Amino acid sequence: MIAVERQLEVIKRGCEELLLEHELAERLKSGRPLRVKAGFDPTAPDLHLGHTVLINKLRQLQDLGHHVLFLIGDFTGMIGDPTGKNSTRPPLTREQVSQNAQSYTEQVFRILDRNRTEVCFNSTWMDSMSAVDMIRLAATHTVARMLERDDFGKRYRDNRPIAIHEFLYPLVQGYDSVALKADLELGGTDQKFNLLMGRELQKHHGQPPQCVLTMPLLEGLDGVNKMSKSLGNYVGITEPPGEIFGKLMSISDTLMWRYLDLLSSRTLDELREWRAEVAAGRNPRDIKVLLAWEMAARFHGEAAATRAQADFEARFRQAEIPEDMPEVAIAAPSEGLAVGAALRHAGLVASTSEALRMIDQGGVRLDGKKLSDRTLKLAVGRSYVLQVGRRKFARLVVS
Amino acid sequence: MIAVERQLEVIKRGCEELLLEHELAERLKSGRPLRVKAGFDPTAPDLHLGHTVLINKLRQLQDLGHHVLFLIGDFTGMIGDPTGKNSTRPPLTREQVSQNAQSYTEQVFRILDRNRTEVCFNSTWMDSMSAVDMIRLAATHTVARMLERDDFGKRYRDNRPIAIHEFLYPLVQGYDSVALKADLELGGTDQKFNLLMGRELQKHHGQPPQCVLTMPLLEGLDGVNKMSKSLGNYVGITEPPGEIFGKLMSISDTLMWRYLDLLSSRTLDELREWRAEVAAGRNPRDIKVLLAWEMAARFHGEAAATRAQADFEARFRQAEIPEDMPEVAIAAPSEGLAVGAALRHAGLVASTSEALRMIDQGGVRLDGKKLSDRTLKLAVGRSYVLQVGRRKFARLVVS
Repeated sequence: MIAVERQLEVIKRGCEELLLEHELAERLKSGRPLRVKAGFDPTAPDLHLGHTVLINKLRQLQDLGHHVLFLIGDFTGMIGDPTGKNSTRPPLTREQVSQNAQSYTEQVFRILDRNRTEVCFNSTWMDSMSAVDMIRLAATHTVARMLERDDFGKRYRDNRPIAIHEFLYPLVQGYDSVALKADLELGGTDQKFNLLMGRELQKHHGQPPQCVLTMPLLEGLDGVNKMSKSLGNYVGITEPPGEIFGKLMSISDTLMWRYLDLLSSRTLDELREWRAEVAAGRNPRDIKVLLAWEMAARFHGEAAATRAQADFEARFRQAEIPEDMPEVAIAAPSEGLAVGAALRHAGLVASTSEALRMIDQGGVRLDGKKLSDRTLKLAVGRSYVLQVGRRKFARLVVS
Repeated sequence: MIAVERQLEVIKRGCEELLLEHELAERLKSGRPLRVKAGFDPTAPDLHLGHTVLINKLRQLQDLGHHVLFLIGDFTGMIGDPTGKNSTRPPLTREQVSQNAQSYTEQVFRILDRNRTEVCFNSTWMDSMSAVDMIRLAATHTVARMLERDDFGKRYRDNRPIAIHEFLYPLVQGYDSVALKADLELGGTDQKFNLLMGRELQKHHGQPPQCVLTMPLLEGLDGVNKMSKSLGNYVGITEPPGEIFGKLMSISDTLMWRYLDLLSSRTLDELREWRAEVAAGRNPRDIKVLLAWEMAARFHGEAAATRAQADFEARFRQAEIPEDMPEVAIAAPSEGLAVGAALRHAGLVASTSEALRMIDQGGVRLDGKKLSDRTLKLAVGRSYVLQVGRRKFARLVVS
């Protein structure tokens, strides 16, 4: 067994909060593999790195010898939106749930260890629950307690409707911990209330209450907003390896350490060593390459990652892109920034019309690649290397 | 079929509110017997006249040709208090429910017409309801709507706990109307919110919404507080006929008309006639005798009622109790008023010690009966005829 102190260090790595550490330490001391629960929506998943923070933590727990309960919340998914108001949440059929679960696991088993993962569906115990059971479950908590949850409290104060069944869902989620006899539950910081519900319901059912580990929301490539598909500042895990590699090479040095903490399988010792090396003068770009390679390899295999790295480096070498160049930050509308305007803002041309002429003449490169599309828009939440002619370079951060 | 106008007059007699009268008129016009729902707790019943206001109204509806659904809410009764905090509400077994229902119907069939009464148990449909059904039911209403119910709103504002299942109970009660396809539901004024819930849930299920008829809470013998066992101002329907008769003879003339409206089976025409006679000089005591006889007869049969009346009158005749005497109201502690103090307050003796001496000498009568117990306490919510010697009388109203 790995020493408890050592395990706690790994478990707490990058986390937002661990409740309660001394209880977890007690359970770790027993040497018994912990039952680690994490709940997932049964909607069609299309994961980006933001989602993998939690999954990565689950993997770390597996590497410490613990058992992961990958819980798919299909019970409520199959109910859909019972008010009928939210047409984006139609009830899922059992077949759809099963398909989505398949797609989910195909993605997460790029990170998780299959042998230490149990995929569970809460319909297993919830489908046979009666109205009486639900009433008894509802009786365990008060309306006031439920309105303490930030979003409920805010909606109530703002006179926005809360349907009564919404008060039942956190209880269902909490009851899942009872059914699974979870020792530890993981979730995002926004899930803390629900995770604590599991603790309380386990106590109510005479079980030792689970510990709760919350993970932060991952910042997107811009380093500011949380990673999300709608903001465009994301890395999808099914993107081509070259995309994953290139996007990660574009992040800031600060964000690089954050991503290593939250996403990498590198040990804390390795990360400590790298920090020391950079402090002593090593180029942080070397470390960024290791991160970009690791992520590309995680989702596409080592060979593909190595090819992506070679392509990336060849492109930069060919374009003779220097290590140092001026960095320009620019706010753009959500649909992106027209490349002509971008070149002018970056000070590489005097006017937008000059920019467009240079593009037409083949004198502009974007991330080392010759640009031919003068209508291209640069995405918000990304950074780009712009080049005009042979010598003029700028790194543009679009936010 | 009895004319709709005429039916509405009977239905509205003594009621607090009828929602919505024009909808009810429409249904009455069809000539079809209405399905009239009234819900009752499955706890051991010990009914007093206050409870019978509603039952009396059901009887009036039966006399108009309608069908009564006497609903026993055994589903929640068998759950008991699921928080476990209220030890006075242990879960009832099916046998207890069945026994209580038996005792209930024995009592109410002294008023209701058995042939037009269907005794129902909501466990019939609720026992087979699943957690999913309950979630869908809960989704039909919002938290804000539920907090509009007076008692919930007040408890929430006062920071007194409301367990979440308490929000489900009005929905269950409302769903009973769906299951029963009720046309009209009766309840106390304090039930209005729950009765309207039935309306809304029927609409939600595509049924024409039930009408709602609320009945007032009956004042007790004191004419001030609502009738309740704990206040002592009640007439239990299983009390001996002489007690029922005597207690009703002690009420004020104003309260007599109220009781006739709410409790008597006399028609509105008869009551109108009596009012006219009293206005023209008839002694209201004659009418009170008719009321007292009717109630004694309702619960013990006509012969017993007639005997009770004869006993009562003989007692008063023997004691030569005059029609008119001074009336004295007095506030007493809840455990009652010592008879010695009562005699002094009524001005019949100069001191309590004189009162006790007079009792010991056999010179005091209470309601025409010689009093020997000097420690007797007069009950709150009653009135008594006190007599000292031959000539000194007072009517004492204890409140």
